[in-house]
Parts: sequence; C-alpha cells; structure tokens
Amino acid sequence: MADAKAQKRQKFESVYPILRDELLAYLKHENMPQDAIDWFRRNLDYNVPGGKLNRGMSVVDSVEILKGRTLSDDEYFKAALLGWCIELLQAFFLVSDDMMDQSVTRRGQPCWYKVEGVNYIAINDSFMLEGSIYYLLKKHFRSEPYYVHLLELFHDTTFQTEIGQLIDLITAPEDHVDLSKFSLAKHQKIVIYKTAYYSFYLPVALAMYMCGIPHTPTNDPYALAQSILIPLGEYFQVQDDFLDFAATPEVLGKVGTDIIDNKCSWCINTALALASPAQRKVLDENYGRKDPAAEARVKALYEELGIREKYAQYEEDAYRRIMSLIETIPEQPAQAKEGEVSLKREVFKAFLDKIYKRQK
Amino acid sequence: MADAKAQKRQKFESVYPILRDELLAYLKHENMPQDAIDWFRRNLDYNVPGGKLNRGMSVVDSVEILKGRTLSDDEYFKAALLGWCIELLQAFFLVSDDMMDQSVTRRGQPCWYKVEGVNYIAINDSFMLEGSIYYLLKKHFRSEPYYVHLLELFHDTTFQTEIGQLIDLITAPEDHVDLSKFSLAKHQKIVIYKTAYYSFYLPVALAMYMCGIPHTPTNDPYALAQSILIPLGEYFQVQDDFLDFAATPEVLGKVGTDIIDNKCSWCINTALALASPAQRKVLDENYGRKDPAAEARVKALYEELGIREKYAQYEEDAYRRIMSLIETIPEQPAQAKEGEVSLKREVFKAFLDKIYKRQK
Repeated sequence: MADAKAQKRQKFESVYPILRDELLAYLKHENMPQDAIDWFRRNLDYNVPGGKLNRGMSVVDSVEILKGRTLSDDEYFKAALLGWCIELLQAFFLVSDDMMDQSVTRRGQPCWYKVEGVNYIAINDSFMLEGSIYYLLKKHFRSEPYYVHLLELFHDTTFQTEIGQLIDLITAPEDHVDLSKFSLAKHQKIVIYKTAYYSFYLPVALAMYMCGIPHTPTNDPYALAQSILIPLGEYFQVQDDFLDFAATPEVLGKVGTDIIDNKCSWCINTALALASPAQRKVLDENYGRKDPAAEARVKALYEELGIREKYAQYEEDAYRRIMSLIETIPEQPAQAKEGEVSLKREVFKAFLDKIYKRQK
Repeated sequence: MADAKAQKRQKFESVYPILRDELLAYLKHENMPQDAIDWFRRNLDYNVPGGKLNRGMSVVDSVEILKGRTLSDDEYFKAALLGWCIELLQAFFLVSDDMMDQSVTRRGQPCWYKVEGVNYIAINDSFMLEGSIYYLLKKHFRSEPYYVHLLELFHDTTFQTEIGQLIDLITAPEDHVDLSKFSLAKHQKIVIYKTAYYSFYLPVALAMYMCGIPHTPTNDPYALAQSILIPLGEYFQVQDDFLDFAATPEVLGKVGTDIIDNKCSWCINTALALASPAQRKVLDENYGRKDPAAEARVKALYEELGIREKYAQYEEDAYRRIMSLIETIPEQPAQAKEGEVSLKREVFKAFLDKIYKRQK
C-alpha cells in the first residue's frame, strides 16, 4: 500500500525534469545568457517539486477515475503535465506569499527570497513560475479543442486566489491585531477564494476538460463539480485551521503558529462568535501576540469554549452535507454515447476519503 | 494640433473608468467585503492611468490606420480596451519593478508599495493588475475568432518581458558593480525582451488581430511586423538610455540616474567597447557609485570617448535600417479580397516618426 503510493508519486515526479528541460530549452533557443538559464533552473528546482504534490497528482487520479481505465503513456504524460501546471501555480503563490508574510522557512528549507543573492528578484521569479504554465499549455495543448478552456480555467482560478489573498492580507495583517475585522463569513470568503478554487476545483476541472466532458447551457457538469468541490475545499481548510490548534507537533509535523501570527482562522472566528464580553477581552488582548503566554491564554479559552466539540460537530455536518451533494450525481448518465466520459461520484469520494478525519 | 492630441488622450482616458467599474462589479457580484473592493479600486486608480499612455493609445491608432477609416463607437471601445490591457500589463510590471529596484517615486508620486499601509501587499496588487487583463479579455472578446490569439499574445509577451527583467536584474544589481557582466550583446537582449516586445510588438499585433489580419504558414504578417517593431523598440530604448545621459533635466523632465544606479545602459556598454585599459579602470572605479563626483568622472569619460557622436551615428543607421524594413511591406497586397484588411507601412512610420530625433 505505502509502496504503491510511493511508486505513484515517483512516476508523477519523473515528469517534472522533462517539463523543466522544455522550459530551459526555450530560453536556450532564444540565446539567453547562460547565467539567466542557470538562475531559472535553480528557481524551478527550488520551488516547484518538493511539496506534497497532492494537487498535481489529483489531476492524474481524476483522469483515471473518469476514464475508468489505466492511461496510455501519452494520456499519463498530459494529465501529469496539467498536474505540474497546478504545482507551478502553487509555487508562484508560495514564493510570493512567503515574501508578503516575511516568512523564514518553507518545506524545511529557507524561503526562496531568503536564499543568498535572491531577495527581491524572487518577485520576478514568482512571475516566471506563473508564466511557465502558459508556455507548457501552449506547447502541449494548443491543438486540443479544450485548449481555450484550460487557459480560462487557469486565469479564473488565479484571479480568484489573488482576490482571496487580498482579503486575507487586509483582514489579518501580521503586525496589526483588530479582531473586529474577523467574522466566520469573511473566513469563508478567504478560504474559498484563497484555497478551495485552486486546490480542489482546478484539478478536477482540468481532468474533466482533458476527458472531453462537455458543458452545455442545460447541463453543466463543471458547475456541478464546483458545487461539491468548493464546500469540500472549505471543509479541508477549516480542518487545517483546527489541526494547527489541536494537533500535537509530533503528529502535525510542524508547530502551529496561527494564534501568534494573527491568522484569520476558523478557530478564532468560532471563538469570537461564542465569546462573552469578558472572554472577548481575553482574545483582544492575547491574539496575534509574539508571546507564548498570550498564546497559551488563547488556547485555554478555546478549550473553555469547547472548540474541539464544535469542530467534531462541524466535521460530521460537513461530511454528511458533502456526501449528499455527491449523491446528486447520476450513477449512470441518462444517455451516454459510446466512448463519452461523464462525471463520476468516485472522483469526489476519493477527495473526501483522503480528508475525512485526517490527523495531519 | 496640441488640442487634437489632448482630445485624443481624453477620449482614450474616458474608457478607463468603464473598465475599472466592470472589474469592481465582478468583486461586488462575488459578494466581496467592501474594504477589499475599495482596496482594489485604489490599486487600479493609483497605478493604471496617469502614465504617458503611448502604448495603449497606439493600439487605437494602429486599428484606425489598418482599417483606413474612422472607427465606430463599438470598434473604438474594443481597440481602447485592448490598449488599456497593455496599460494594465505595464502597471503590473511597474508596481513590481519599483519594489525590486527599491525605487521611491514613480510618475511624480510615491511608488505604490511606499504608500502608507501598502508595503508587501503591493506584490499581490501587481498580480491583480495582471489578472484584470484576462478578466476583461474574457468579458469582451470571448466570442471572437481571434480570442485565443489575444490570450497567447499576452502570455508570450508577459513571459518575454519577465525573462528580460531577469537578465537585467542579475546583470546589473544596483548594489554590486561588475562591469565584466556587461556587453552590447547582453544589452540588446535585455532591451528587446524587457521593453520592445510589450511596448512595440504587442500594441500592433493586438490591432492586427482585432482587424482580422490572418496568419498562414506561407504568409505571416505578424512575423513581418515583429521583424520591424523589435528593431524599432531597440532603437527607442537605446535613445532612452542616451537621453538619460545627454538630455538636460529641463528637457527630459527628470534627472538621469543610470550611471549612479549601475544600469546596463547603451552608453556604458558602448563606452566599455571603446575604452583603453586605463579608461576601463576609471569606469570600474566610478560606475554605479552613489557619488556625484564619480558620476561626473564617468560622464567626462563618455564625452572623451565621443558617445554623442556614436549615438548620432547609431540613430542615423537605425532610422535608415528601419525605413528599409518598412519598405519591404507591399504597398498594395497582391490579391486583397473585399473588406480584407492588410498590413500598412503607415502603422510603422507613425511609430518611427514619433521616435526619430525625439528630445525627451
């Protein structure tokens, strides 16, 4: 089992150097100076692989489920390429987010902008990670009838993520605590725009386009997929927020810092909704401070307010709600033509199963 | 004359608020918090209008020349919209360049990231300026047969500009002078990629697509246009570099700082190509220093090396070379169908006339 998972990851990873070399070949072909080519290579290698690759690999998984069979080598390569395009988009966001948050480490190494000699060049490097997506899509998908849909999907999702990031940045600046700006409604907007679209809807929609699933005005399986994947992404992020508070560092693999960093997390927003005026005062005075004692006071209040129970309840509700949404997908489409691929419940169940009651 | 020019600008400017309001309406429609909508509005208003608007207006000019007649209101709006998309792209570059260069002012006001409360949020703001392009193109050009060409043109040009910016950033960092990295060949690469594609090829190619000019494997007017506009853009930037050194602040409207800022300018690269070992030593010791005396020594050496004469010679050569390129365009296309628009010399002459022997 663990072995099959490692093999799957390895196969997906083996596509990365091919794509990197195609990007570098473009710069070589344009006679770019060698130091610029070397720089771009280092940018790609430092920032694109090395993550969990869940988003990228879920494109491949979804294409396999939708087609209901093993993929040919060419199909696998194209699905993996789309997956790597999401990883490029993610790298674009992470490199720039780390600068905006003034973070120090990412994936167990210094943030890219913190690497000797990089600094502000990281801004342009993040742009080039985004630009690489469209170079690769043009090179490999230009003649496909769904090419323009892939482009629009990346445009729309990128813009949505940027809007989510804007709300997050102005609602929860690290250096200025103002809990009156927080609310569960704002948290939901941030989570959906900043995370759910690109992490959940994007991989599945890419897979659907690659499988040629059509959308018509009367029957839009993309809207249907979105209506399930956005709540799913929201649930995932609420869980992420909860684990940052509740999971032990040993299980989580990192130390949660949301309270200290003034993050607009599900926990603080739920606490704010439940707090008495006296408890609210404790939150106002202790949230977002670079002080372990203040953090401990917030955590104690979370326990007092029963955040753990609230979360358990949220999780059960979310699971049930998403399951019923999944069950609105017809098991067998009304009139499927030979070779025509249609939406399958299994695509969404695969996501939900990976998330439900996860511990890290 | 000056009045007609001001009117033309005013007409172009009157399209901007419509587009801004469409972008804000999208955020409103998605129920974004009011503070995020206000922030985005301020980002757009601060960074998009207020420049010289040459790039944007040249789309309108080019469409008019290509069609050979006054535009209908709808045609004007669409041409101006494409022009504003270049201005959005430019704003995306300028907001981020100012951060990378740690500049203080832009267009006579503080750089956006220097505005109270903005700081690193400017990175995400620059992304949203870029993202706005694709929102507007989708809204207004989605059903046009050339829509996908517009998207690819913006992708390609953006990536080219980013590559040019990378070479510039690693060749001429403001805080580390190493003239051995400079060369006229590298200068040419920087200039073409960082400026010529988006400032010269992009506006004309957008106009050509909007006029329905086809490209076929045997006859590619886009390649022909590029073969003229890239040298033209190169000439423009060489001139810009020369004026930074040679024009008086009264004429230029600003104080040239290329020498102090260690810029990879045409002047220093030409000087390096002409300098004796002793003169080279003077350049190594005085270029890129934050010291007016050092700057004066570099300027004296430029005069000694005859940079003014070299430039005059360059300008005459460039003018003649570009004119001959323009004259390769057939005056009357071999077999033009009724209503079919073809490339016209006048498009390129209009650019060249604006540039030749300009003083600022």
